[in-house]
This record gives sequence, structure tokens and C-alpha cells, in this order.
Amino acid sequence: MNRIITIGREFGSGGREIGRRIAENLHIAYYDQEIVTELSSRSSLTEGYIRNVEENHPLPLLPITTARTFGLSSNQAAEQQLSVYDLESRIIRDMASKSDCVIVGRCGDYVLWDMEPFRLFIYADIESKLARCRRKGSDAKELSDRELRRRITSIDKKRARYYNFFTDQTWGDKTNYDLCVNTSLTDIKKLAATLTQYLESLL
Amino acid sequence: MNRIITIGREFGSGGREIGRRIAENLHIAYYDQEIVTELSSRSSLTEGYIRNVEENHPLPLLPITTARTFGLSSNQAAEQQLSVYDLESRIIRDMASKSDCVIVGRCGDYVLWDMEPFRLFIYADIESKLARCRRKGSDAKELSDRELRRRITSIDKKRARYYNFFTDQTWGDKTNYDLCVNTSLTDIKKLAATLTQYLESLL
Repeated sequence: MNRIITIGREFGSGGREIGRRIAENLHIAYYDQEIVTELSSRSSLTEGYIRNVEENHPLPLLPITTARTFGLSSNQAAEQQLSVYDLESRIIRDMASKSDCVIVGRCGDYVLWDMEPFRLFIYADIESKLARCRRKGSDAKELSDRELRRRITSIDKKRARYYNFFTDQTWGDKTNYDLCVNTSLTDIKKLAATLTQYLESLL
Repeated sequence: MNRIITIGREFGSGGREIGRRIAENLHIAYYDQEIVTELSSRSSLTEGYIRNVEENHPLPLLPITTARTFGLSSNQAAEQQLSVYDLESRIIRDMASKSDCVIVGRCGDYVLWDMEPFRLFIYADIESKLARCRRKGSDAKELSDRELRRRITSIDKKRARYYNFFTDQTWGDKTNYDLCVNTSLTDIKKLAATLTQYLESLL
């Protein structure tokens, strides 16, 4: 079985950078935005539309089976969202079948459960996330601390809603992960190197 | 500042063994039962009584300040429980001031917050905890799976109640820890070695 590492992450926690660095350190594939690109090339959907569906998943908080029972399939927008999830899941499974890889977000831990991925969750306290967004995000410059804080919280809420809807699990609940890492006050590069060692030793 | 590692752990998750092995691997002090022994030697309380207070903390679920406001100080039993916590906290702080160490349970992460401990939380799914208790616990032999499961849940509930009461935080909530490790299906000895590397690299 391939070594598969899935990463759930809070916005601003450095999860994406950790994923990229782990993939580089282990010399394995890294899939994040690549999943969107692949989905766009396999369908009629633009990358912008797919990202919009991922980020602004507006379906009500019903389990997917309930949503289907309630006839949401007749709602074209809802149906297209389900289809984005279904297609992405298929692409993720294809990618994970091909070779060792790191997969960021998109319910990877759930989608690949039978392929026994190592499931990481990366989080941090709000102050660290604010500081990181200030350092990294060019568009954060124009926001006040209060606005940026609200933005971080809002993105995480959307991630949680997306994950909880499709998996019937709770996003960020430690029972769904093998390792939950708090990146507050930690150097991300050093942490990624340490996590690489950890994964090398256990996988 | 000393390297201090605190370990919160679910019953049957292997957290205590991990703590012991990390301390051995790092050649640093290990405090668990030793805290009870020290408290007993400094007070008139027997080790049995102290363990009983730790394990069966029967105070109502009020924050400690509220408990005091409501005049629980007049209740001798309640007062003695508060005093066990206070004395243990003092002992833990003394121990952590002396040298690098691993401290298991007893709200160590909270008691030592200003000494910046590395806060580990060890957990596992119920099946793994059952299996571990069957392998390790001599008294588990006489219990049915259902009884053992109930016992595990009950001990964890008591740990949560004790921690939540004294810290005003939530036991096992990942935001209170630096690293949360799921030991399900994992070899504890190997995991402890991997965690030792992790800590050596970051601390």
C-alpha cells in the first residue's frame, strides 16, 4: 500500500506549507491545488468555479444521505456541488493509488479511509494564525486585526461545514486523526522537518 | 528553563508507558506515582487516600472559584480535595523547577503553564484501549468486554471532571496541547522512540 498522508488544517496554521515541505522532504507527490486543476481538465467546470464551491459550500447542514432523500438532486446548484465532491474524491483516490503522496484538505482522510492514510491535523491559536496571515497573505495588509480575525474564523467555519457535511464526522475532532499538531509559536520549517522524521519512522 | 513534558492521557491509551519511555530515552526524571508518594510524605494523608481523591473527585461541576464562593470551604471533605490539588500542584512545580522531567496527569500542563511545558495528549479508539487493558491489566481478566468498556469510559469521565474542575479548560481539547497522539493500532515502544526524536528535535 502506498504511503499516503492527508492534511486537515486550520486557515493560517501553516498546514499547507507543512504538507508541501513534508512532500519535498520525503520526495513524494503533493496534491492540493493540483486536484482542482485535474478536476477542471476532466469536466466542464472552471478552476474558479470549483474553488468557489469548495470555499462557499452553501448547502444546509444535513447529512448527504438526508440531502439526497429530501430531493436536493432536483436543485441543480446543489447537485453540482455534490458532483464536485464526488469527482474530487475520485481524483484523490486515483492520485493516492498511483504513488506515495501528501493530500491537503478536501476530506482526504475520509475519502481514502480504506487506504489507511496517515491523518494529520494542523492547528494553532488565533494570535499565531493572525501573525502568520500578516506575514504571508498579501491581501491581509488591508484588513484590520478584527477584520482579519473574522476572516480566519469564517474560512474555518466553511471548512468545517464542508467536511462535516460530506463525512458525517466533525472537522478537527482529534478522534478522526492520527496526529494533531499545534503550530503556535513554532518555526514551520523546523516543524515540517521534525514531522518528516516522525512519519519516516512510523510509516 | 528546564525541558518539561506534561502528559494527559486517556485510560488504556498507553500514555503512561509512553511517558515513562520518553523519560528513559531522554534520561530525564519521570513523575507519576512519585507525586503521590511525595505528597504523602509531606502531609498526614496516606497514598491510598490521595489516589482515592484523584480518582473519585466527587465535587459538583462548579468552577473552583464558584465552589469557594458557595462556602464549600466549610465542608471538610471538599476542602481536603482542594488541598490535595493545591499540594500536588506545589510539588509538581518544585519537581519541574529542579530538572528536566516528564509529568503524567494531575493537570500538569495547566499547573506549569508559565514554565512553558511541552503538552502531550495521548488517546486511542475504544477498541484499542480495550485490547490494551486486556493485555496489561491483570484485573481486566474478570470483566466482560461490556464491563471493561464501561470501566474505561468511567475512568476517563473522572479524569475529565477533575481536570475541567481545576483548570476551567476542557480535558482532551486539542487547543490545550501542543501535540495530540492517537495510539490506535500503533506499537507503543516504537511510538515512544519516535516521539522522543520529535521532542529532541523541537525542545
